[in-house]
Amino acid sequence: MKIGIYGYGNLGKGVERAAAQNPDMELVGVFSRRDPSTVETLTGAKVFAADRVEEFENQIDVMIICGGSATDLPVMTPRLARSFNVIDSFDTHARIPEHFANVDKEAFSTAHTALISAGWDPGLFSLARLYMNAVLPEGRDYTFWGRGVSQGHSDAIRRIPGVKDARQYTVPIAEALEKVRAGLQPELTTREKHLRECYVVAEEGADRALIEKQIKEMPNYFADYDTTVTFISEEEMKKSHSALPHGGQVIRSGKTGGGNSHVMEFSLKLDSNPEFTASVLIACARAIGRMNARGVFGCKTMFDIVPADLSPMDPAELRSHLL
Amino acid sequence: MKIGIYGYGNLGKGVERAAAQNPDMELVGVFSRRDPSTVETLTGAKVFAADRVEEFENQIDVMIICGGSATDLPVMTPRLARSFNVIDSFDTHARIPEHFANVDKEAFSTAHTALISAGWDPGLFSLARLYMNAVLPEGRDYTFWGRGVSQGHSDAIRRIPGVKDARQYTVPIAEALEKVRAGLQPELTTREKHLRECYVVAEEGADRALIEKQIKEMPNYFADYDTTVTFISEEEMKKSHSALPHGGQVIRSGKTGGGNSHVMEFSLKLDSNPEFTASVLIACARAIGRMNARGVFGCKTMFDIVPADLSPMDPAELRSHLL
Repeated sequence: MKIGIYGYGNLGKGVERAAAQNPDMELVGVFSRRDPSTVETLTGAKVFAADRVEEFENQIDVMIICGGSATDLPVMTPRLARSFNVIDSFDTHARIPEHFANVDKEAFSTAHTALISAGWDPGLFSLARLYMNAVLPEGRDYTFWGRGVSQGHSDAIRRIPGVKDARQYTVPIAEALEKVRAGLQPELTTREKHLRECYVVAEEGADRALIEKQIKEMPNYFADYDTTVTFISEEEMKKSHSALPHGGQVIRSGKTGGGNSHVMEFSLKLDSNPEFTASVLIACARAIGRMNARGVFGCKTMFDIVPADLSPMDPAELRSHLL
Repeated sequence: MKIGIYGYGNLGKGVERAAAQNPDMELVGVFSRRDPSTVETLTGAKVFAADRVEEFENQIDVMIICGGSATDLPVMTPRLARSFNVIDSFDTHARIPEHFANVDKEAFSTAHTALISAGWDPGLFSLARLYMNAVLPEGRDYTFWGRGVSQGHSDAIRRIPGVKDARQYTVPIAEALEKVRAGLQPELTTREKHLRECYVVAEEGADRALIEKQIKEMPNYFADYDTTVTFISEEEMKKSHSALPHGGQVIRSGKTGGGNSHVMEFSLKLDSNPEFTASVLIACARAIGRMNARGVFGCKTMFDIVPADLSPMDPAELRSHLL
């Protein structure tokens, strides 16, 4: 299967590496908005200017779009769906119906297959919620995230005057997690589920107390949480906080008809959020290429993907090895 | 959706209760090999003689076959697939290819849809293995079972002369589980993964030391494990060991292309193995009915089921609530 990568940040680099782990995948090239001559790839993949992408219309089975959800993907995914089968990791939950409709229109009318919101949340965690809800209709879901770096919250801190760099970790609260795992179905406030740990490099002479206050009182991002702020040096930031770990768990507990209790849990512990997300995208590329070949067109989510389509094994092999 | 239950043991009773939790399911009746007048159902479902089942050919969308894997299902599922869309929970791993072929032939030639090996293992655990392998191609899988009652091992003990009743719990070894969860990818022998705890009611005057020796040395079942044998009274057996809890976890740890490690885990903690398995079968019945209506015929496994088909929610609802 021939794939392309559109956008070459952390996620695009992860896709490049993930493609190299899957012998059935051939990476045709990386498309970047930067000058291709200035972009060096990790595995020697070719780099092309993003505005030349349409020239590759018949050379790429699936294009993996590695842009941001805020402004890139709402434009890129529908546009590229006119020329390619596409996959993105759009994660702005509230705007999924709108994005889905836009992508579906373009993909369907040009006989392409598109997958939006692939990755782990949305993605594998969404699938866990779906399977768990279908199996245990009377119950309650919980999702915990972390311990992991939230890019959005780190960026929000960086926008505060006097902040040179910042890293925010979302941390699930162990006590809440224990109650949920025990099947107690607790009522939990936002504050009771997660802590926010912030590591901040302040500019010289900046008012640290003011920065800390601005972080802790920031609405939506921090005000509803117990938040810790630790000022560190630039060296310390580079040394101890340059990785992008993440993870979390989806847990559903509920009762079956005879009154018996059950707890289901899906959890991830990831050393690199972008590399793992990229690995999910590669498996999805396999499925989307196969669906397009079978004549299934339009926009899909991971809810619409037959599990067997994600695997390089053939159906008989899957049944004898994994069933 | 109109369903039937063929076989009315623990699993059949669980399906009856699970159907009552799903408003889109209508239970037409239970088919039993016993005299229907002697069978009392939990929710008042009608009971019919098993040999009258063909009369219901056009009144049931999906027949859920609740028989044993050793001798019942290899005969029942192919035969009933001639007249119905069918689901079973066939769990003899080594014979799955043969059972699949037999059921596929009958279902396909009569335009029915069949699902074999549904439940949690095989079933949800198999799905977890498939998703995890597709996403992390370089890694290692582990499956732990328990703490839970193994029916097969309990039966094996009951066949020893002098044993009146027995219950065997499979118990995962905490130390092994911890190593796997830490991503260490240990090499584990059978003995290092699970313990076997046996509770035995001996007949009066039986040689307990001999019974214990026979259990511990029984090949395949116990000889490769650390096994404990505790003799208890009949009252104690009834009081403390009449539930059928089970569960376990599928864990895969592996590395992505940049050398980062990841651990994925799916776990179940079930107070009633048959009630939970039955709940999975009901969700699968929904999917199989839908697939048949779309003209998808032949034998399938949970690997072939589009996740969205398992849910009573429509696709737009799924995207806005669970994605």
